[in-house]
Amino acid sequence: MIKYLTTHPWKIVEEGFNPKHQRSSESIFSIGNGRFGQRANHEETYTGPTLQGSYVAGVYYPDKTRVGWWKNGYPEYFAKVLNSINWTGIRVFIDGEELDLAVCSTANFRRELDMQRGILLRSFDVTTISGKQARVESIRFCSMADDETAVIRYSVTPLNFDGTIRFMPYLDGDVHNHDSNYDEKFWEPISAEAWSGGGTVVCRTKKTVFDVAASMQLTLHANGAEQSAPFAEFSRDFFSENEVEVTVKSNETVSLFKYVGLVSSLNYSATELGNAAKTAAERAKSKGFDAMLNAQTDAWATIWEMADIQISGDDEAQQAIRFNIFHLNQTYTGEDSRLNIGPKGFTGEKYGGSTYWDTEAYCIPFYMSTKNQHVARQLLVYRHNQLEKAIENARKLGFTGGAALYPMVTMNGEECHNEWEITFEEIHRNGAIAYAIHNYIRYTGDHAYLAEYGIDVLTGIARFWAQRVHWSEAKGMYVMHGVTGPNEYENNVNNNWYTSYIARWCMQYAMEALNYVKANHSSAYTEKTKALNFDEAAELKQWQHIIDHLYLGAKEGSRIYLQQDGFLDKELRNASSLNQSERPINQHWSWDRILRSCFIKQADVLQGIYFFEEDFDMETIRENFDFYEPMTVHESSLSPCVHSILAAKLGYEEKAYEMYMRTSRLDLDDYNHEAHEGLHITSMAGTWMSIVQGFGGMRVVNDKLTFNPMLPKKWKGFSFKVMFRGEVKTLKVGE
Amino acid sequence: MIKYLTTHPWKIVEEGFNPKHQRSSESIFSIGNGRFGQRANHEETYTGPTLQGSYVAGVYYPDKTRVGWWKNGYPEYFAKVLNSINWTGIRVFIDGEELDLAVCSTANFRRELDMQRGILLRSFDVTTISGKQARVESIRFCSMADDETAVIRYSVTPLNFDGTIRFMPYLDGDVHNHDSNYDEKFWEPISAEAWSGGGTVVCRTKKTVFDVAASMQLTLHANGAEQSAPFAEFSRDFFSENEVEVTVKSNETVSLFKYVGLVSSLNYSATELGNAAKTAAERAKSKGFDAMLNAQTDAWATIWEMADIQISGDDEAQQAIRFNIFHLNQTYTGEDSRLNIGPKGFTGEKYGGSTYWDTEAYCIPFYMSTKNQHVARQLLVYRHNQLEKAIENARKLGFTGGAALYPMVTMNGEECHNEWEITFEEIHRNGAIAYAIHNYIRYTGDHAYLAEYGIDVLTGIARFWAQRVHWSEAKGMYVMHGVTGPNEYENNVNNNWYTSYIARWCMQYAMEALNYVKANHSSAYTEKTKALNFDEAAELKQWQHIIDHLYLGAKEGSRIYLQQDGFLDKELRNASSLNQSERPINQHWSWDRILRSCFIKQADVLQGIYFFEEDFDMETIRENFDFYEPMTVHESSLSPCVHSILAAKLGYEEKAYEMYMRTSRLDLDDYNHEAHEGLHITSMAGTWMSIVQGFGGMRVVNDKLTFNPMLPKKWKGFSFKVMFRGEVKTLKVGE
Repeated sequence: MIKYLTTHPWKIVEEGFNPKHQRSSESIFSIGNGRFGQRANHEETYTGPTLQGSYVAGVYYPDKTRVGWWKNGYPEYFAKVLNSINWTGIRVFIDGEELDLAVCSTANFRRELDMQRGILLRSFDVTTISGKQARVESIRFCSMADDETAVIRYSVTPLNFDGTIRFMPYLDGDVHNHDSNYDEKFWEPISAEAWSGGGTVVCRTKKTVFDVAASMQLTLHANGAEQSAPFAEFSRDFFSENEVEVTVKSNETVSLFKYVGLVSSLNYSATELGNAAKTAAERAKSKGFDAMLNAQTDAWATIWEMADIQISGDDEAQQAIRFNIFHLNQTYTGEDSRLNIGPKGFTGEKYGGSTYWDTEAYCIPFYMSTKNQHVARQLLVYRHNQLEKAIENARKLGFTGGAALYPMVTMNGEECHNEWEITFEEIHRNGAIAYAIHNYIRYTGDHAYLAEYGIDVLTGIARFWAQRVHWSEAKGMYVMHGVTGPNEYENNVNNNWYTSYIARWCMQYAMEALNYVKANHSSAYTEKTKALNFDEAAELKQWQHIIDHLYLGAKEGSRIYLQQDGFLDKELRNASSLNQSERPINQHWSWDRILRSCFIKQADVLQGIYFFEEDFDMETIRENFDFYEPMTVHESSLSPCVHSILAAKLGYEEKAYEMYMRTSRLDLDDYNHEAHEGLHITSMAGTWMSIVQGFGGMRVVNDKLTFNPMLPKKWKGFSFKVMFRGEVKTLKVGE
Repeated sequence: MIKYLTTHPWKIVEEGFNPKHQRSSESIFSIGNGRFGQRANHEETYTGPTLQGSYVAGVYYPDKTRVGWWKNGYPEYFAKVLNSINWTGIRVFIDGEELDLAVCSTANFRRELDMQRGILLRSFDVTTISGKQARVESIRFCSMADDETAVIRYSVTPLNFDGTIRFMPYLDGDVHNHDSNYDEKFWEPISAEAWSGGGTVVCRTKKTVFDVAASMQLTLHANGAEQSAPFAEFSRDFFSENEVEVTVKSNETVSLFKYVGLVSSLNYSATELGNAAKTAAERAKSKGFDAMLNAQTDAWATIWEMADIQISGDDEAQQAIRFNIFHLNQTYTGEDSRLNIGPKGFTGEKYGGSTYWDTEAYCIPFYMSTKNQHVARQLLVYRHNQLEKAIENARKLGFTGGAALYPMVTMNGEECHNEWEITFEEIHRNGAIAYAIHNYIRYTGDHAYLAEYGIDVLTGIARFWAQRVHWSEAKGMYVMHGVTGPNEYENNVNNNWYTSYIARWCMQYAMEALNYVKANHSSAYTEKTKALNFDEAAELKQWQHIIDHLYLGAKEGSRIYLQQDGFLDKELRNASSLNQSERPINQHWSWDRILRSCFIKQADVLQGIYFFEEDFDMETIRENFDFYEPMTVHESSLSPCVHSILAAKLGYEEKAYEMYMRTSRLDLDDYNHEAHEGLHITSMAGTWMSIVQGFGGMRVVNDKLTFNPMLPKKWKGFSFKVMFRGEVKTLKVGE
């Protein structure tokens, strides 16, 4: 745990500048608007450790895979989230000396993420090497009201001298990805121009041929009034810059306004892209900073109106849940069916791809309840659109007849991940995709979705499972070998209970869905089953036989389900017996030791019990929780929320609270020492679930929303709203 | 299977030039002398597909590891066998047109590896684009008599014209490795000089700072007499070249002699290296081609005198065994304790490293029987010298107290391999290293080895196993989890029978060895156990407890040992049911499918039964062979020999013969479609075993050599010699 931020119900605040925290703060203070996002890199030159990051939704690069030993079926390429044109840069010279926080000393440094308004502020007093002192204030945001624009106001006030302030605002497309496999650059220059007061840069990704354009419009204010100071311009490949210098007196403030337009070829043709960016920047400038700020405040007010969760009596908990909700809204707005929710959103490069099972298992409930149900539906349709690729993916692994295996990681439906124990074996992801359809329909009542899209996906998934199991003569049952469950600290195990359970459920649900469509949408059924080449009699019979004879391990004389074959042969220890210096174990233990241990990275059996709660009585849930929870090290961000929800259900208030704090403050308190790489965006939806489904006890039962609240001792009260079938429902507990 | 070579008892012959086979032939026709080796690349320019390869023993490069996702404990670097200075190159111009077999047409092409004399010959008639015809003959060898030298005689005879022949012999150190992880070059230039009639190039590896120097001395003969034609010289970084042109008449032969010296910093200081190479080349030149050839013939005659196996009535079998024995002798002569036997010897880059468990499991018996016993001892001492690194390697993985884990792949004792399922889990290699000590002492009677070196290694290994198992409460026994057996088509399994069996044996043998040394070399015992910090009472008690309670799986109601937990849950099929188009499965199936299948890459349970034959009665051996053999796909080169030996023991003559042909002609007939990458050098020792131990039935029983021969129907007879405790024993069966 690394705590250096100030607690505040609506703000994240960093006081005092410590270069050691810079990369973590760049992640935590990231801003975005669903269309693009930006790490909290300093605008001015910074020669200390930094991870530059400007990301544009849907723009990716297929980086050539890097493996030790190639195995058949590995993908050739890994889709990388792309660091794109740096649009925030402003070089600043204070009486001729360049401002660089790695060189100059600061006082009164404050960085603030105002989550209520969606803006990033920074202020500090700086002393240059020669002793010149100045006050610096910057404010910036990515407009939610006009998602092609952003703005920065950068102000400098000399404190102990009269002299010059020079700004060199620029756009720079000559950027690289820190995680490029072969240190290659992913961009090529298309055009760069500069004029007095602005400039435009257009770049193109290699291979994928995405174009991105950024344009800037600049104004300069001194003492509150716009100045007509002449901007000198400069451009080269990838790069456009202006330069302006003004002479100011001590305590006079000079402000540069940088209005930015940022667009991509997802929405414009290549020929119009540069102009589209320029038009957007001009639109921002003509609106002006104050009007943009008001629009930003209004847009966020609308979001918060529906999505806010209020907690009284516990500012740390309050700050944390808003931090989570804030980032989810910055990452994905649900307005574009081509987009999805990357595990790091717009806060870092790590993991690559944009779509994991996280979306289905964790994110859909959040968007379903806090947005229009259309948004959740769109996330389902995203997978439907990639069904052909999932079938092709399965075919590459030897499956036939329309069996579909969705990728572990993807941008465009193709698999990106390249560890065999994940790519080929962590197949439970297929289950979550089916589960999301069920979850969506249960919540929204939109049964028609099955006829329109659902049964295609469900049939492909059921077919996969039917081929993935095999008959064991020794057991006289079907078994599923060679699997990695959600607990990635076990690889290549046999009969992972979670995977087998959800596989069986998928076949059952696919049968029900097909029957439903047959009964209620008969012409759609005829058309779909024909297109699917569905052999109703044979396939249903096969699925039923597997459903009736699939092996699921359990511990004799107990209600405990076995995570996998042989689990009880392990040395069973509690995680609490681990030395603190060994944790997280994934940063201290060799992989074989982790695999041989009983320690569980994230909910596995418990994930299944969470998903299919209604299948188990309370004693079964308790016995499994009591068995597995103490062995769980929660080194995946996706783990604590599930434990928190189950603990709340079981009345384990202290555990529920501990797990809530762990999931909600995972990045703020940097539990796993990795905030510098970016935030755990998808798990933030799990945080939301741990309040709504955990402490709120919200469930859908027979088309009705029910609540079974628990108020943690530390809290005076909490309240939230959800959208359910067109109505806003409010739960208020305590004060 | 790809058959294009002519059968001959002493020669490998390729008739007709087919560029498609060039890379395979470059491997198969490789020559070497234990100190360096050379693929059969054409001397003249060749712009078709080729894998240039000149390798110098003990010279390697630690290439930065390439992985998808880093795991704790992975090595940073992978030691690569290094492509080194190209000393064979001679550009040839026929009346001004450059000779290039990718461009010119050939007739009467013949490539011949004369294994009896250890020389490579090539001859062909070439027609240039303009229609000039010439006869070309080249002959080269790496001198066994003077292992710092090599020589090439390259002759051209115009057939249909009078004109010029120009030679441009060169040395080129600006080479790269085809398998460089990041396309980096591994060499930097030190010096390059050229003079009329010769030149020297010295290069240095980056990071490891090995220096290699090559020098050439040139003479030109026409119509049998040396010419004083002036050589023009040229040099640049990495490169030294001469150029000479002569005018010849039709049917007059002109020959270039290139005498080469090749030395490395393993044997010379950096300052003297260039001169050492030059001196060696001068020595070769002053000796002259004919004298060198005689010495080569003599040196190989001496080798064959002891190592030859004669088979009558089956030229394919005869050719094959000599091919195997030939390459083993080219790869390792046993004269330098710093060297070992790389899996591809000097025939390719693949795999990297030089030392695998192959050395202990397969190669030691060959060298023990065909060389002085000192050579086998030296291979044991090699591991003893790396014991500290093995202890460090184990420490990195969390083992303590002097536990030693030898690396899977190594050059200098450090682990190179970087797949977790191999590096961390394929730990049975430790067992083979202990077994080799036992095997050596059983064969030689050199019990004193235990006191001098053996118990250090055996104690480190026993300590490793004692920590690698754990107590299973559920089983009430020790178990060993997270293991990859010799059958690498299973990863991360529990209770691999072979690994557990050899682990138990190691602890038992270490106890016996310690007791032997205590009883017979008491002062050595005191000294060694002190240095080892050996807690006699506690450690022996712990080992004994594990020996008495280690779980070994077996199939109920049978004598079959279980390859691993859950093996009987698989779908059990015979390999014969596979479609030919799917084979080898590792080139056609995705990895998960291979892992889930029952198919066995190489002897696993059967490897254990082979090693510890005396522990099992014939019925047990038969039942296990009958169970596992049909599921074995032999996609490792190390597999068929073990099956051949066991089949011979069981009287399965047909199977023994089939497996013998498969192991002995693996590369000649390219069973697994990979000869182009290099030859399977270490498995060639297994081929030798399959005759000596298989058909010959040779065993050591109570310090005596016994034979139990079987004559395959196809053979009229076979005979071989072995060296046993200072005496040469001959077995002659049939004619």
